[in-house]
Amino acid sequence: MKCLSCREEYDSNDAGTCKECYEEASETEEELKREIEDLKAKVAFLRFWSPLDHNHRSTTVPGLPYTDVVLLASDGPKDLPPIPIPAHKAVLVSRSPVFKAMLENEMEESRSGTIKISDVSYEALRAFINYLYTAEAVLDEPMAYDLLVLAEKYQVKHLKAYCEKFLVSKLNWDNSVMSYAFAHQQNAKLVVDAALSLITDNMDKLTKREEYMELVEKEPRLVVEIYEAYLAKQVNTAVHKDSSTKS
Amino acid sequence: MKCLSCREEYDSNDAGTCKECYEEASETEEELKREIEDLKAKVAFLRFWSPLDHNHRSTTVPGLPYTDVVLLASDGPKDLPPIPIPAHKAVLVSRSPVFKAMLENEMEESRSGTIKISDVSYEALRAFINYLYTAEAVLDEPMAYDLLVLAEKYQVKHLKAYCEKFLVSKLNWDNSVMSYAFAHQQNAKLVVDAALSLITDNMDKLTKREEYMELVEKEPRLVVEIYEAYLAKQVNTAVHKDSSTKS
Repeated sequence: MKCLSCREEYDSNDAGTCKECYEEASETEEELKREIEDLKAKVAFLRFWSPLDHNHRSTTVPGLPYTDVVLLASDGPKDLPPIPIPAHKAVLVSRSPVFKAMLENEMEESRSGTIKISDVSYEALRAFINYLYTAEAVLDEPMAYDLLVLAEKYQVKHLKAYCEKFLVSKLNWDNSVMSYAFAHQQNAKLVVDAALSLITDNMDKLTKREEYMELVEKEPRLVVEIYEAYLAKQVNTAVHKDSSTKS
Repeated sequence: MKCLSCREEYDSNDAGTCKECYEEASETEEELKREIEDLKAKVAFLRFWSPLDHNHRSTTVPGLPYTDVVLLASDGPKDLPPIPIPAHKAVLVSRSPVFKAMLENEMEESRSGTIKISDVSYEALRAFINYLYTAEAVLDEPMAYDLLVLAEKYQVKHLKAYCEKFLVSKLNWDNSVMSYAFAHQQNAKLVVDAALSLITDNMDKLTKREEYMELVEKEPRLVVEIYEAYLAKQVNTAVHKDSSTKS
């Protein structure tokens, strides 16, 4: 028989689908692709132009239309005043329940129209605000860490998930312990689980690592959790082996 | 052979794909579905809460946060003042080049913070503004016509395409001439083409219709276009017949 997709001959052992199912599957694929196109158009429509799109680091406030709040990153050079990042209250409030509470409850930030954010660089804050407008960010590892912290602090779930996925894709033995500890602080469960799985697969090498010793010193409870995960894995494997021997 | 998808036996004449292509196709489908999930999450994140979500027709201005402009529909009951629809200039400007020009060029609307829109009902204007925030609208035919007019006037392409698709799906012989004339006015090419195709398939019935006579009276050029399309179709069919007889 000839495969309708790759045009190669195959025999009955390598049979995939009948003609009917093949045609149905092609239709489904077409439909899914159309749905993707529709959704992409929707995203493009809903994506707010960002007030930061065309303004790289500069010392003047860009002349943006209708902004009503300014954000300041505290972590800039000490001898220069922080560069203000203009934004719209309506956007901040719609993206983050923390900004919502802050701005709607007539707190200092609401009265002054200025939100100061500590322990963050101008670049990270700028990328954060940009994400709130566009749902897009260019990530490398340091930026993903910074944005994950901001996403957790301001409860921007969509950004948090985006950073977590990126960090999981970058996990390796060298950064696993550090990632594990960091992810714990930020309640980043996806990263915690992935790092834990990597660490417990390499327990023989773990105790020699510097980061391990540091962790024992500073956060012994996290180390206990590693051992508990390791133990659970061993028990699990034993049960599996046992049942497969019996069957 | 057994189909891996429907589990039915089939013979070589009904062969669809080999196993390898079947598995590849399943993976592709999974990937496409994941992409759809990601895009849906993005849409949900980017979708602005609408200032109109929880406010059905009421006579008070709802207390919305940070709106800086009000829209008024002129087509309300004469003895009542129009109900203001509050919105954000930043949103209007980012969705419509016409609002952008209007608000950025220090026109009357920009100074007063009030945009009056003529020949539109409160309900249609409300649905229009809602769409600018959410990319969603509940359509029936009259609403699709109203929103298409607004989308064309304010150059909101995404909404225009949405209304056009809906109207094409509702095309039938009874509304075809009316739709054709309307779509022409609004430069709605998708609807024009679909209506034209339906009309030219039923030329024998056309001249008896009341709408046809009206169109001849009011917009004879549109009638000429119908005949031109009909002629082109006939020529095309003749060429096809000719070439298929020869082959």
